[in-house]
Amino acid sequence: MEQKTKINAEEGKQELVITREFDLSVELLFKAFAEPEIVEQWMGTKVLKLESKKHGSYQFETTDPKGNKHRFNGVIHEFVENRKITRTFEMENTPFGVQLEFYESDDSDSNRSKLNMHVIYESVAQRNEVLKLPFAQGINWAHNRLQEVVSKLK
Amino acid sequence: MEQKTKINAEEGKQELVITREFDLSVELLFKAFAEPEIVEQWMGTKVLKLESKKHGSYQFETTDPKGNKHRFNGVIHEFVENRKITRTFEMENTPFGVQLEFYESDDSDSNRSKLNMHVIYESVAQRNEVLKLPFAQGINWAHNRLQEVVSKLK
Repeated sequence: MEQKTKINAEEGKQELVITREFDLSVELLFKAFAEPEIVEQWMGTKVLKLESKKHGSYQFETTDPKGNKHRFNGVIHEFVENRKITRTFEMENTPFGVQLEFYESDDSDSNRSKLNMHVIYESVAQRNEVLKLPFAQGINWAHNRLQEVVSKLK
Repeated sequence: MEQKTKINAEEGKQELVITREFDLSVELLFKAFAEPEIVEQWMGTKVLKLESKKHGSYQFETTDPKGNKHRFNGVIHEFVENRKITRTFEMENTPFGVQLEFYESDDSDSNRSKLNMHVIYESVAQRNEVLKLPFAQGINWAHNRLQEVVSKLK
């Protein structure tokens, strides 16, 4: 089945563009990234810190099926409600480096919205390592969860 | 005269690597980026905010010869004393976008140190626009000022 979340990885570039359309208002979509309780539900992570504001920061923790904990964190460069989050992202204790991420959302109509994620890596090699992970399936699955969980908040 | 600050801009990439050697201990070099009073002296900027720590942030302001004020700001993803600063950078109200910057320093010997700046742009086009500015001369001049100002703190 075709995945709803599309990934555009141009050869030789150190960036990705990821897009998805949701059957959610842009206000609900934005809450999915900005509000700790909602982030925890669809990402399945513990939110250790999430300051959703310009010059804020965050740290999340996941626990894998073996019980190992993995943390990731970053700083929020810009935060424009219902429109844009510019932030850094790092999986701690991995070789994937630090990424710069631009999330932009806009509404198609009152019940549909688009998410555009532009992710920039330290190098082409690091981006390509990320793509070797089950990355496309993982993010599509996560976005399906987002749709499902946030729909119930309507 | 050859500039001491070297810029490596590979064709078609959205990044720059900038290197410079200073006749300064790594401790003094690091202070030049971490301590507000010293930043103000060599950069000629007013430091509105500088939280030199992991998940900190900063905002600086310069005044041009015509009296116009220009601000730039960013968030600090990582801060490792005398070794590394990973941060975002944005010139406010310009089309140059947000950059991700990795500053790394190490000592050649007790009185000399190297600075390596890896700067990643949102796009190749934005990087190339930055290179059309008197960028190479500007950063070399700023690093000369850094050397001069910080030498006096010895």
